Amino acid sequence: MSYFDAASAAPLHPVARQALQASLDEGWADPARLYREGRRARLLLDAAREAAAEAVGCRADELVFTASGTRAVHSGIAGALAGRRRAGDHLIVSAVEHSSVLHSAEAHEAAGGSVTRVPVLRTGAVTAQAYGEALRPDTALACLQSANHEVGTEQPVAAVAELCREAGVPLLVDAAQSLGWGRVPGDWSVLTASAHKWGGPSGVGLLVVRKGVRFASQGPVDERESGRAAGFENIPAIVAAAASLRAVRAEAEQEAVRLRELTDRIRTRVPSVVPDVEVVGDAVRRLPGVVTFSCLYVDGETLLHELDREGFSVSSGSSCTSSTLTPSHVLKAMGVLSEGNVRVSLPLGTPVEEVERFLSVLPGTVAAVREKLGAPTPAAVVHEDALVVDSLGKLCPIPVIELAKVIGDVPVGGTVRVLSDDEAARLDIPAWCEMRGQEYVGEEPADRGAAYVVRRLS
Amino acid sequence: MSYFDAASAAPLHPVARQALQASLDEGWADPARLYREGRRARLLLDAAREAAAEAVGCRADELVFTASGTRAVHSGIAGALAGRRRAGDHLIVSAVEHSSVLHSAEAHEAAGGSVTRVPVLRTGAVTAQAYGEALRPDTALACLQSANHEVGTEQPVAAVAELCREAGVPLLVDAAQSLGWGRVPGDWSVLTASAHKWGGPSGVGLLVVRKGVRFASQGPVDERESGRAAGFENIPAIVAAAASLRAVRAEAEQEAVRLRELTDRIRTRVPSVVPDVEVVGDAVRRLPGVVTFSCLYVDGETLLHELDREGFSVSSGSSCTSSTLTPSHVLKAMGVLSEGNVRVSLPLGTPVEEVERFLSVLPGTVAAVREKLGAPTPAAVVHEDALVVDSLGKLCPIPVIELAKVIGDVPVGGTVRVLSDDEAARLDIPAWCEMRGQEYVGEEPADRGAAYVVRRLS
Repeated sequence: MSYFDAASAAPLHPVARQALQASLDEGWADPARLYREGRRARLLLDAAREAAAEAVGCRADELVFTASGTRAVHSGIAGALAGRRRAGDHLIVSAVEHSSVLHSAEAHEAAGGSVTRVPVLRTGAVTAQAYGEALRPDTALACLQSANHEVGTEQPVAAVAELCREAGVPLLVDAAQSLGWGRVPGDWSVLTASAHKWGGPSGVGLLVVRKGVRFASQGPVDERESGRAAGFENIPAIVAAAASLRAVRAEAEQEAVRLRELTDRIRTRVPSVVPDVEVVGDAVRRLPGVVTFSCLYVDGETLLHELDREGFSVSSGSSCTSSTLTPSHVLKAMGVLSEGNVRVSLPLGTPVEEVERFLSVLPGTVAAVREKLGAPTPAAVVHEDALVVDSLGKLCPIPVIELAKVIGDVPVGGTVRVLSDDEAARLDIPAWCEMRGQEYVGEEPADRGAAYVVRRLS
Repeated sequence: MSYFDAASAAPLHPVARQALQASLDEGWADPARLYREGRRARLLLDAAREAAAEAVGCRADELVFTASGTRAVHSGIAGALAGRRRAGDHLIVSAVEHSSVLHSAEAHEAAGGSVTRVPVLRTGAVTAQAYGEALRPDTALACLQSANHEVGTEQPVAAVAELCREAGVPLLVDAAQSLGWGRVPGDWSVLTASAHKWGGPSGVGLLVVRKGVRFASQGPVDERESGRAAGFENIPAIVAAAASLRAVRAEAEQEAVRLRELTDRIRTRVPSVVPDVEVVGDAVRRLPGVVTFSCLYVDGETLLHELDREGFSVSSGSSCTSSTLTPSHVLKAMGVLSEGNVRVSLPLGTPVEEVERFLSVLPGTVAAVREKLGAPTPAAVVHEDALVVDSLGKLCPIPVIELAKVIGDVPVGGTVRVLSDDEAARLDIPAWCEMRGQEYVGEEPADRGAAYVVRRLS
């Protein structure tokens, strides 16, 4: 059994478990009360806040505990926007933020605000320049993740923070994926994080608002957590979250080197043992434990199911594995192949043997899925110089498979038009062309869906 | 050590602890994932939802888990109001709701909505008639607690639900204090509750929305918990919450009889062993484990501190123990004495010996506090028929103590004018008159604070 989805949720760290169990006896009472059970709970809460603040690199009175990372993001964005209402209602986010940030942006738009979504490079990174160009006189807030949750690419947070600081705009950093590895660099204004990403328990998020940042909590509040997170504090979980953050930080430097070597093996060897694979994300500026790749002619859900049968728990940004039938917004923004997408995110302590077993199992698993779907083998006969493939009503990865099957049927210079109403085709057909050295001519309107035109170059 | 503040937070039930520990191993993964750890987490979550729904008496798909009872109330009220926006923007609450409900009402008013706060009888109960009279054609939602958190009085939920149903207005019931004792009666529409009130862990609330009730979640949402509670589910805590709700229900009937007998002892014997005490709340229609009384001429904070030294953890609605310097809104709405207020709320399993020890310790503790504050002993000499007492700048209970000291100095029929700028005096001077059989003439404006006029009748 190999759990390779730490970017979704890390297993509970042993230190978190110990701290949780110990504080169930000491930390259940109301910390606002004056009697001894309340005072004990208050002491635990204060100590946890000090420890978490030290790990973040902020003052204890700048940090509050929320009920989740998502709640920290929602409250942080709403509070920072409201605090800057007089400056304007323009919000900047990157196109590859976590859904909690994008949902907040949508809510802001629905309430009449304006949003700029900064595009990313093919690596998944934004450029500081693009953020600088997005800044406007009416910009109330900019948001940027410290590292991407789907492909592991690190973002240029310090450089963006510098530009924001010059413009007088606060920067909110979603540090969910990176806080266990170290402090977020640069002069950010607001920071959010989630304990279950670093091996803490579920139910704890962090919201840090630097002194001097204008902030106005939205919705009903109460007297708890400086009026920034309403509701009874979950102290046993908070204690466990802070204790495990310290613990993972203590092993972070060493473990980062080890996991980076393991994900490098996957980055390097997957393309050599599995044909038609694209490894995505920045090869260098990335989280130590995350590696993501997409496999042509593969249905993500079937691949995940087969890997699960082999004992590997991984995640996917393919549309086939989601309920929405659109591919991951991250892969889409990067413009990379989304079909047969696999994210491997290694928990702390992953043994090298598990990674080696994954590398030995993967080629056969992918080959079996492709065989089941009837993926193409090279064709030989040339028929016409313009073919039409009708893939209407067929879902990823079928349109790409049908394109690949016929591309050899037109002469070099000839075109194939793929008719498709699957949203993933818009992303995957250009990505296939790039991988295959064919020319993606463009998209044309059609009665249903669209026609994707490809010219054979080789 | 006697912890008598279960209405704030109950100690963790042994069943909750067992369930929490067991599900830390099985329930940490993302229940939205397809691999085995995700499927296991999903099974646990589904089973917990079934168990909680059975205890509430609703369908499993009507119930979602939130991060706290407060969050359930905030989301429930906002969602129900938004769902009924076309009907109007009038909200009805009782004057004695939990602060989470009142904060939601204030937020609604701040956003332009209108709110009616239904007054209560001296017992703390609303009447169904008063709710009926508050209903208007533009009423979007009515809220009523199942039982009051400060004085234990049960509310006529079923009768109010019936009136609301006839008017086509949904009723939201905050069942935080009563759900451990049994299902909420009547045809309510929305229900909220909090696990740490019944011995479950912190970090879990329930939000139940009956099928057919118009509901539109507010703020950013995600795909979790039917779009009604954003953020990663805290499954170990949810499992523990559901398991402990079943466990406390199994012992509820027997324990209710036992605790009711213990709180009856306190209700009956405190006024006979401590002079100048008012026991507040309904004597019959009340929660089994809660009893509240107020002691004249006593400073609540000092009394709590002294009781804590004697090993008793109790709570208070006196202004002296809160940071706001105004007495509890509940005692205020009931029009009862607030000074020297003590709430005893017994956890399940409280031994009779602890209650007996409390009853034996209390008289000496109260007497010591009174002596320290110089509480009055009867005076004999008659001076003038109109006295002025300057209590400006003095906090509860000093203005009442000074009034009591001089009332014997005026003849029967004479008046005492107490000048005070302490908010608690407005409540406590009339309450003192009622307890002492003196006439409260009324309040008059003064340069600072107000003048409270009292006529000596006996």
